[in-house]
Amino acid sequence: MFDVIKKDLEVLEEELLQAVSSEEELVNEVGTHLVTSGGKRLRPALCLLSARGGKEFDLKRTLPLAVALELIHTASLVHDDVIDSSDTRRGEPTANAKWGNQVAILSGDYIFARAFSLIAAAGYSNRVSVRLAELVCNLSVGEIIQDNAVYQASRGYEDYFCRIQKKTADFLEICCDLGAEVGGLTPEEGAKLAEYGHCIGMAFQITDDLLDILQTEETMGKPAGNDIRQGIVTLPVIRALEVSPESEVLRHIVTDPEMSAEDVERALKIVKATDGIDKAKEKADEYLERAKAVLPDTLPQEVKEAYIMVADFIGDRDY
Amino acid sequence: MFDVIKKDLEVLEEELLQAVSSEEELVNEVGTHLVTSGGKRLRPALCLLSARGGKEFDLKRTLPLAVALELIHTASLVHDDVIDSSDTRRGEPTANAKWGNQVAILSGDYIFARAFSLIAAAGYSNRVSVRLAELVCNLSVGEIIQDNAVYQASRGYEDYFCRIQKKTADFLEICCDLGAEVGGLTPEEGAKLAEYGHCIGMAFQITDDLLDILQTEETMGKPAGNDIRQGIVTLPVIRALEVSPESEVLRHIVTDPEMSAEDVERALKIVKATDGIDKAKEKADEYLERAKAVLPDTLPQEVKEAYIMVADFIGDRDY
Repeated sequence: MFDVIKKDLEVLEEELLQAVSSEEELVNEVGTHLVTSGGKRLRPALCLLSARGGKEFDLKRTLPLAVALELIHTASLVHDDVIDSSDTRRGEPTANAKWGNQVAILSGDYIFARAFSLIAAAGYSNRVSVRLAELVCNLSVGEIIQDNAVYQASRGYEDYFCRIQKKTADFLEICCDLGAEVGGLTPEEGAKLAEYGHCIGMAFQITDDLLDILQTEETMGKPAGNDIRQGIVTLPVIRALEVSPESEVLRHIVTDPEMSAEDVERALKIVKATDGIDKAKEKADEYLERAKAVLPDTLPQEVKEAYIMVADFIGDRDY
Repeated sequence: MFDVIKKDLEVLEEELLQAVSSEEELVNEVGTHLVTSGGKRLRPALCLLSARGGKEFDLKRTLPLAVALELIHTASLVHDDVIDSSDTRRGEPTANAKWGNQVAILSGDYIFARAFSLIAAAGYSNRVSVRLAELVCNLSVGEIIQDNAVYQASRGYEDYFCRIQKKTADFLEICCDLGAEVGGLTPEEGAKLAEYGHCIGMAFQITDDLLDILQTEETMGKPAGNDIRQGIVTLPVIRALEVSPESEVLRHIVTDPEMSAEDVERALKIVKATDGIDKAKEKADEYLERAKAVLPDTLPQEVKEAYIMVADFIGDRDY
């Protein structure tokens, strides 16, 4: 998918390993495990693509930013896994499962700090460091709010879109925005790429939430309905609460922290019987269309094509 | 003690509250609790004193750094309390006790990121941001190592001094060093203040470790010998392992993760019967003498006096 930045991404892998390497064996081992266990590298890829849109593209200058973006994502997942007591991620044991919460919490802190250290050493503009620090603030605040407001069916569309923006779309927007800045694109081009990032981020999260409802245990490696179980109300559920004849049953289930596996099954059935799934797919498609439409004409053709492929890929994820 | 920066510290309190304020009520509440529950403000005080040593002192310019230093300290304590499952700190309930691990971990991340956000927005030199990011890296790595090597009596003097440097002295050194830079002191003056910070940091931690052995449950609010119980070997214990006739008994106790309360009592008795306490006090005093001797003569008199008082205060902490 990323032919134009295939070689950049290979160098990125080496730099990621380098960034978490340490003289201390345990720290090295944890860091290596974390940056090598899967990950689509979507954030650095967006950053590199944006930077490649400019005439001044310089891989060496862009890499610290691309690496820092992936490190921030990684550190945030490490702390999420401690919070959720998750045992596996992408088929690999989590840091907390392998080394305990202590090591996992501190490794997350270490990786966050490594990201800020790379950014500081690279000497980018203040805007780059400020936006990255604010991103981490917002990711944390967003999650505190989400975790504090689970099992509340009253949360409507506005709340949902606001939540997924903080959780996913802002991050992808920043990858495109800062990549464009470091690549020397004009502010107008940067603003358009930032909007592209926002739109594919919204579509990505809507799709992710859909997968949680539609996929089977075999394909996902975990039972469907995980969001419902954790008290997180997503787009199809909000729609079903609005239109389903069994709306009250659904409301009762999704607000009950003690719901049984049968309750989750029943809730999924109620949601699937409505147009909630189709409406969510439509919304994701709307965002993807807008993403493609907003791409500046001034981008090199191969970068623009890669960006369109990213959008299409998000739309085509297996339901 | 800090007359010369008394007003600066009052403004600092307001800025600290401002720094963690948030539109989200829960985030605001946690942040306020964390920055208002005690704390000696030693780190920002050292930073402000150093900056006041220069002719260019500008409170407004120094405050973001002073605030960021206290925030980094706070965030690191929040995560420590989660790791140690501590219920109270400085007589107040910890964030994990009050709001759970989830909120505590994320609030720690938020506060770390707020610190980096302040530093980025202030537009200091790259050196300032790089050193702060590296400080957080080293604090995390230092703690991973310490937590991974508990109940090992074989760790000698060199290991101990290396550990307390990473845990405490490097932090106080950076406060003085960066305060001097932002205050416009010469690099020579900055290097001397950095050494001062290193020395009082070493003395501070040695004294802290001594208090853990010497204080009684009534004065400390927790039973003495906490370090021994957690498998952490400090200076008097290392000395006792070397010279005590009961060295083997002591070694057996401090390497046993299942030690009983009676074992801890016995270990404390063995340590107190040696010259380990006196040797540790001597070492702390050596560091404090060196700290005072290294202070540059070019400092304004009231700053120099305040720095001497800080050193004397550390030496006079109640045993």
